[in-house]
Amino acid sequence: MARILVLGGDGFCGWPTSLHLSALGHDVAILDNLSRRRIDAQLGSDSLTPIASIETRIAAWSDLTGRDIAFYNTDAADFAALRQTLATVRPDTIIHFAEQRAAPYSMKGAEEKVYTVNNNIGTTHNLLAAVTELGLHTHIVHLGTMGVYGYDGDGLEIPEGYLNVYVPGDNKQIFQREILYPTNPGSVYHMTKSMDQLLFQFYAKNDRLRITDLHQGIVWGTQTEETRMDERLINRFDYDGDYGTVLNRFLMQAAIGHPLTVHGFGGQTRAFINIQDTVRCVALAVANPPEEGDRVKIINQMTETHRVRDLARLVSAVTGARVAMVENPRNEAPENELRVSNKTFLSLGLDPITLKNGLLDETLEISRKYAHRCRKDMIPCVSTWTQSQHPGVVSNEVPLFAVGK
Amino acid sequence: MARILVLGGDGFCGWPTSLHLSALGHDVAILDNLSRRRIDAQLGSDSLTPIASIETRIAAWSDLTGRDIAFYNTDAADFAALRQTLATVRPDTIIHFAEQRAAPYSMKGAEEKVYTVNNNIGTTHNLLAAVTELGLHTHIVHLGTMGVYGYDGDGLEIPEGYLNVYVPGDNKQIFQREILYPTNPGSVYHMTKSMDQLLFQFYAKNDRLRITDLHQGIVWGTQTEETRMDERLINRFDYDGDYGTVLNRFLMQAAIGHPLTVHGFGGQTRAFINIQDTVRCVALAVANPPEEGDRVKIINQMTETHRVRDLARLVSAVTGARVAMVENPRNEAPENELRVSNKTFLSLGLDPITLKNGLLDETLEISRKYAHRCRKDMIPCVSTWTQSQHPGVVSNEVPLFAVGK
Ligand SMILES: NC(=O)c1ccc[n+]([C@@H]2O[C@H](COP(=O)([O-])OP(=O)(O)OC[C@H]3O[C@@H](n4cnc5c(N)ncnc54)[C@H](O)[C@@H]3O)[C@@H](O)[C@H]2O)c1
Ligand SMILES: NC(=O)c1ccc[n+]([C@@H]2O[C@H](COP(=O)([O-])OP(=O)(O)OC[C@H]3O[C@@H](n4cnc5c(N)ncnc54)[C@H](O)[C@@H]3O)[C@@H](O)[C@H]2O)c1
Repeated sequence: MARILVLGGDGFCGWPTSLHLSALGHDVAILDNLSRRRIDAQLGSDSLTPIASIETRIAAWSDLTGRDIAFYNTDAADFAALRQTLATVRPDTIIHFAEQRAAPYSMKGAEEKVYTVNNNIGTTHNLLAAVTELGLHTHIVHLGTMGVYGYDGDGLEIPEGYLNVYVPGDNKQIFQREILYPTNPGSVYHMTKSMDQLLFQFYAKNDRLRITDLHQGIVWGTQTEETRMDERLINRFDYDGDYGTVLNRFLMQAAIGHPLTVHGFGGQTRAFINIQDTVRCVALAVANPPEEGDRVKIINQMTETHRVRDLARLVSAVTGARVAMVENPRNEAPENELRVSNKTFLSLGLDPITLKNGLLDETLEISRKYAHRCRKDMIPCVSTWTQSQHPGVVSNEVPLFAVGK
Repeated sequence: MARILVLGGDGFCGWPTSLHLSALGHDVAILDNLSRRRIDAQLGSDSLTPIASIETRIAAWSDLTGRDIAFYNTDAADFAALRQTLATVRPDTIIHFAEQRAAPYSMKGAEEKVYTVNNNIGTTHNLLAAVTELGLHTHIVHLGTMGVYGYDGDGLEIPEGYLNVYVPGDNKQIFQREILYPTNPGSVYHMTKSMDQLLFQFYAKNDRLRITDLHQGIVWGTQTEETRMDERLINRFDYDGDYGTVLNRFLMQAAIGHPLTVHGFGGQTRAFINIQDTVRCVALAVANPPEEGDRVKIINQMTETHRVRDLARLVSAVTGARVAMVENPRNEAPENELRVSNKTFLSLGLDPITLKNGLLDETLEISRKYAHRCRKDMIPCVSTWTQSQHPGVVSNEVPLFAVGK
């Protein structure tokens, strides 16, 4: 069993992952500066579910299972502080979730752009530099995003990170190269993940660090086997315009009788994964590290793709909610195809939870149970992608299009 | 004539560029936090040439030409400070030289790695975010490096930034894509330039910023038409193991009777440009901006390629200096080919100054004139690329190989 440090272990993916790895018998420690909770306070938003403090969470887990999780309130973007925590823990494996992860938040204004870049590049690079300096033989597992590939698909299946390309030379020779899939990020947040890739590539090559980069789809669902054990362990559920991911937002909107707000005509196709599969995938990644000297191991962590309007129809069919098509605040293609290879995790035994088999009910259940905690004014997306755009604020009253059920 | 702000205008390239643009009639302002001078103090090194303070430099230029250059002592890695200077100057064009630019310095240790990433990504991203927020219609000209392409050439001519590639799909279809040339940076410094490219790509696409990225070769020479006018205008000349670029280091070593220190067998082929051509190229880039909505305009700013051992032989032939082959502190290929397209500047009228036509004499002259200022203990490269390497310290006494003249 490994000694594992989870950076960002108080977050939506990090918390259930920490519990899952602890349940599997690993010696888990969490590093988090609680910045996500502070951003909630700054935005006036909050998790729909009543999440406990990190201290209460950890104490509850210990009560229930007898397993201890250490907690370090450390800012990973502060090199000296991160270095010190790493020197103390000396982990075998580090899971790195500690980034500002909302695309709309990253596009709110100049301050948020600057914060997102400084925080995300800061945490990732500090980690690589500190692991190198301390001479740790740590396996680093990072959460990337499917968004680095971009959504301008021309029908080519998106591979797991690398692409074989052919280049005609000026001398009739044809050159063959294996390259990182060329990125086309759609927000400052996604851009930082593209930049992270270059950091990993360099440190894997120069310092032979062992790195796995998980290009994750949009996560839906809330609870996992472990977080379900006790209300004090409940996972966060974001529904606001900045942090709420699309399917969770639809489920919560349905629960409170708000129309499902689809950006534009909802032709955007995206990749999805359930939170329970997220934690299983991370455990599989931990158990299957690359060798020293290997290139970065890139794995697509997603299980299905859907068009946004089809998701809205699905939720509408289950709940009776109206669908409202609203102006798209994002600067993105209105329609796209998406074909993604996800062979690695399937071959390692992942048995995907898909949208149809009942878990939608659990999330809907949760959103109904805590509907009274919902702040309706936090629902609209008000971050616009460019200065010339109007904020895509929508109210119940004035959807651009409303599709009755 | 344009209002031009030169970020890093106190540096080796920035100072002569500022003077050249001022001489051409532009309204030039310099922004610099003088960090380069502070790093000299920290390392115990100094310019071989006795550079005047920025205030004296600017006053001398005004005395000699009647032209005023404003100076802002601003840290561009501090968003609020940079934003304020930009709001004051509201430049038509910004030339961005303000990065930590020494590969060996960037590999010295964890602190220097972290500083280089935070400083370089900080200055570049702050600039893009501030120009966007202020709604300036500024043309941004950035100094990148040939090093982003990597030196693992397989014979393919390096294009000006973009590559047309063909990708076989799983369905027998062949996909064609235009991509950024895949980067393979050889140091943390070069890595930051690769990351800068992703920043530029995003802001050009999302915010329609007009950006030119100049992928510059290694600069040699010291003086330009303008810096030669008066000793108070003299340009800096770095010869230390961190900041000295290879040809200038050879010339200075020859001047003081030190053997020319070649890393390994000197099989590394690199691209070069004279400092006078640097300032001309930047002026050409300023005069030929991309249109709003264009992709980033990438231009290779180099005029010739040479193998390091051939440069050593050339300097040895001119000066009689010995050549000493020393252990290579860098983690790089011992030999490489390099073919580079540099059509753009040639087609805009650049008439390159090459190594043979006499300018070597001027630089040699300068290094002889100021040889008494040389600190010999600053000559060796002591930064190693990986922790397992020995520092490539060499003394006069123990070269690995010495090649007599
Ligand atoms: N949620 C998704 O749908 C999704 C999809 C794809 C990828 N991801 C990636 O997974 C990772 C985790 O996402 P999440 O949804 O759990 O986000 P989250 O915001 O809920 O969790 C991130 C955690 O990291 C912490 N953190 C941020 N900066 C830190 C710093 N400088 N020092 C210490 N801690 C810091 C935050 O306090 C927070 O607890 C992110 O990297 C995200 O980009 C998430
Ligand atoms: N010299 C070369 O051979 C060469 C080759 C290729 C590319 N370049 C690029 O050209 C640019 C200039 O190089 P140089 O040789 O003149 O370097 P330099 O170090 O002499 O000049 C850089 C200047 O920027 C300033 N600076 C750095 N960080 C700053 C910050 N945060 N705020 C304000 N000012 C800051 C420094 O004080 C310095 O005056 C760099 O981006 C470098 O990467 C140089």
